[in-house]
Amino acid sequence: MWKPDRKNDSPLYMQIADYIEQQIISGEFPPGSLLPSERKLAEKLDVNRSTIVLAYSELRALGLIESRPGSGTRVNSTKWGTIPKQSIQWDQYLQPANAVSPKGLQKRVRDALQQDASLINLASGELNSDLSPIDEINQFMKIQKYQEMLGYNDPLGSIKLRSAVANHLQSENQIQTSNASILITSGTQQALYLICHYLLSPGDTIAIEDPSFYYSMPMFEDAGLRVFRMKLEQTDQQGETSLSSDLHQALKKNRVKMIFLNPNFQNPTGAVMSEDQKLDLLLLTNDLGIPIVEVDPFSLTAFQSKCPQPLKSSDSIGSVIYIGSLSKTVAAGLRIGWLVAPRLIVEKLAEARQLIDYGQSSLPQQVAAEFISSEHFQAHLGRLRLHLLYKRDLLIEALQLHLSELVTFEIPEGGLHLWCELHFKVSETKLLDEAIKQGVVFMPGSVFGKETGHLRFTFARPDTDKIAIGVQRFAKALHTVLQTP
Amino acid sequence: MWKPDRKNDSPLYMQIADYIEQQIISGEFPPGSLLPSERKLAEKLDVNRSTIVLAYSELRALGLIESRPGSGTRVNSTKWGTIPKQSIQWDQYLQPANAVSPKGLQKRVRDALQQDASLINLASGELNSDLSPIDEINQFMKIQKYQEMLGYNDPLGSIKLRSAVANHLQSENQIQTSNASILITSGTQQALYLICHYLLSPGDTIAIEDPSFYYSMPMFEDAGLRVFRMKLEQTDQQGETSLSSDLHQALKKNRVKMIFLNPNFQNPTGAVMSEDQKLDLLLLTNDLGIPIVEVDPFSLTAFQSKCPQPLKSSDSIGSVIYIGSLSKTVAAGLRIGWLVAPRLIVEKLAEARQLIDYGQSSLPQQVAAEFISSEHFQAHLGRLRLHLLYKRDLLIEALQLHLSELVTFEIPEGGLHLWCELHFKVSETKLLDEAIKQGVVFMPGSVFGKETGHLRFTFARPDTDKIAIGVQRFAKALHTVLQTP
Ligand SMILES: Cc1ncc(COP(=O)(O)O)c(C=O)c1O
Ligand SMILES: Cc1ncc(COP(=O)(O)O)c(C=O)c1O
Repeated sequence: MWKPDRKNDSPLYMQIADYIEQQIISGEFPPGSLLPSERKLAEKLDVNRSTIVLAYSELRALGLIESRPGSGTRVNSTKWGTIPKQSIQWDQYLQPANAVSPKGLQKRVRDALQQDASLINLASGELNSDLSPIDEINQFMKIQKYQEMLGYNDPLGSIKLRSAVANHLQSENQIQTSNASILITSGTQQALYLICHYLLSPGDTIAIEDPSFYYSMPMFEDAGLRVFRMKLEQTDQQGETSLSSDLHQALKKNRVKMIFLNPNFQNPTGAVMSEDQKLDLLLLTNDLGIPIVEVDPFSLTAFQSKCPQPLKSSDSIGSVIYIGSLSKTVAAGLRIGWLVAPRLIVEKLAEARQLIDYGQSSLPQQVAAEFISSEHFQAHLGRLRLHLLYKRDLLIEALQLHLSELVTFEIPEGGLHLWCELHFKVSETKLLDEAIKQGVVFMPGSVFGKETGHLRFTFARPDTDKIAIGVQRFAKALHTVLQTP
Repeated sequence: MWKPDRKNDSPLYMQIADYIEQQIISGEFPPGSLLPSERKLAEKLDVNRSTIVLAYSELRALGLIESRPGSGTRVNSTKWGTIPKQSIQWDQYLQPANAVSPKGLQKRVRDALQQDASLINLASGELNSDLSPIDEINQFMKIQKYQEMLGYNDPLGSIKLRSAVANHLQSENQIQTSNASILITSGTQQALYLICHYLLSPGDTIAIEDPSFYYSMPMFEDAGLRVFRMKLEQTDQQGETSLSSDLHQALKKNRVKMIFLNPNFQNPTGAVMSEDQKLDLLLLTNDLGIPIVEVDPFSLTAFQSKCPQPLKSSDSIGSVIYIGSLSKTVAAGLRIGWLVAPRLIVEKLAEARQLIDYGQSSLPQQVAAEFISSEHFQAHLGRLRLHLLYKRDLLIEALQLHLSELVTFEIPEGGLHLWCELHFKVSETKLLDEAIKQGVVFMPGSVFGKETGHLRFTFARPDTDKIAIGVQRFAKALHTVLQTP
């Protein structure tokens, strides 16, 4: 990000005016296009708003831009030297603008994080860098020979990585499969995109859990899918949960074409479906002929118990599309994920992926293949589990210390997140704003489809020594909001 | 790819039967799904067809599969042990099957290359591995610290790579831009995908050159776009070419919403638009308010002359979306490309990309940033140009030796390809089949939208010492086809 140079002789406002002029001339801001508001630009460039006011007035004097009350500051489209009067109406290419980006409170969280790197981040669903195997990855990069695979890749992904994933799935997840039934993807995200756009059609209905991380993604809206919120379980008199008895009816009535699930250490709740529920669900959906998409990025994080088995490991008729990823166990920035499905499905999605990007870069594929087939991977997972458990406990301790009267939560046995229920009704927007003011961010429950009263804390993301302070700040924000009418 | 083990005591057909049984049990071939034909499977596993006949008969005896004349061999869907009778009708998820994959002769070329690695490859549009800077890349991987960027990336791509690309564009292509107007993509392919799906809408008309590499991509069909074939130039009495005078009319009449061009060393023709044509075209399209998408992966390969300037370097109102890539100058397997456009467009496409795959892997971004900002990059480009020139000349020599009476071509001054016109009418299918029989592949002209009578040879792809032999084989194939009625 360019910033004006305070040691430069030229005044800040002139530097900024020159900079914007150059961007107008190079077409980055075309004639007629909107410039950032004075307030926004001031924030971005770390200067006073009055500096931007001067810079814009300079550009106005040059005839480069014009400001109209209510419609902001725009690049001049009429007095434009040698350039033809008519220019591109880019606006028409920007419709519909909203189907692709996160909205509302999620966007607010993202913007806050972008603007202020010092916020304690209990919001982003990723590992802190101290949980990623940086040394091992550096080691592999040092010894690796990047010799083959310089041309376009195999559409399914590198055979070495697919073999490594097949072995990994067999030994860690009890999933039997073979190379030709695996597609390497750019994380689970791309696997989901491929399914939504290339196996389903606009107008199709899919079913998802409630709450679910899917609500945080504009994915389904973009693909034109209808979403049916599933109530998965019911509790009997003994307090035992079982598969909801109306589920069959509901799936049928809504003509559900696919079910999207995250059965192990679900995001955001941390819940694990029981073995019985998994088997019941498979029977039920097989009976209805509805395939399941199982997203399983967390099962290997199980803190203390055995890793829960995926649905896919009990799937003997190929009714489950299984999706995994290294994002939550190694590094999200690697963008390595995989999809396991019947052969024909994998082949179709591989073709679709060719169309989208000609396949994954061979570099991270090679590093991932080496890493997951090495002994270092197991050692890393062991350390990761201990670390996550430690961070979870720090979070719980802090919650008990500062918020025990105000929130309830289930203790997650794996994953990166903890899901809280608030005992009091508060405005999510106010709470988030106040938290940001106090220097901490969390994910409001509505981002996951819950009405107010819930929120997600990610213990994996903040620095270990910041967890308690983060919760303290959050508690302060909550108290403030509760006290203001 | 699994193959039966010839040293194993168990007979080949039993090994194959066991292997397929396991894949049926693990759901890779679901109940009711089609197995490969005996001939295809035999080819794939490198055994006699009779071995597959035996293996399938074994599986039939177990009740696992059934064969019906005319409908091939399928996994049994009725007598299926403990599995519910109803299973997933995957077929309904595979429609429409054809919009995503290459078809016809292009598919034939790809299949042939997959089946027989010994074919001389004059078809694939990529560099031979001896033209890629393998040593340099290995060097960078050795010294690099993969420290930051383990979490999710900046939606626009790594700031380091964007800065490197901005400098690169300024010094090599005379394009003025800044970080915030650059989006890193997974090659030009993904940049095109983003534009087709997120700036255009189904039913929109776009204009492309004729011939063009776009015909080889199912991209436009998948996005539901209408394609208008543009006649760009006309020749006057003096033999000078200028922009076609009906172009204005034609673009307007067809309500063209965007123009896709590859003005420098065009694929497949190798043609370079003149400076005048470029400026005329910009004036004309600005006048009509139609943006141009300029795909420019080849301009830095200019063999002897100065690199031709992109349209984008003369674009002062942001009417050109510029797309570049390292695929044709460094390595296609890296999957590093970029898109330069007005700020708002870049921001929208960055959001769309988040939705598709959460961004490019940070590893190749880091390697690419280091490489293109190092002195090694210039040295590599210098070597690449000399090498390509040498290979082009070998191809031309061979064509003159073996085909001088049969083909005409323009000599390309950059790029990877040479475009030939055949003097005789022949069936493309027959010619390709015969060439494959002789041990060589080329790209038939119809893949690029030309009726018969043209073809593309890629001199960059084959090993240097195979170019002459490849042409000789092709000549033999052509003679054979010309002699058979
Ligand atoms: C359950 C779940 N699946 C998938 C993703 C996306 O991960 P990736 O595409 O990096 O694998 C997330 C991200 O938060 C997630 O929580
Ligand atoms: C003109 C042109 N653009 C783009 C591509 C795709 O390249 P990339 O690897 O950058 O996606 C090709 C591939 O052949 C091409 O010829």
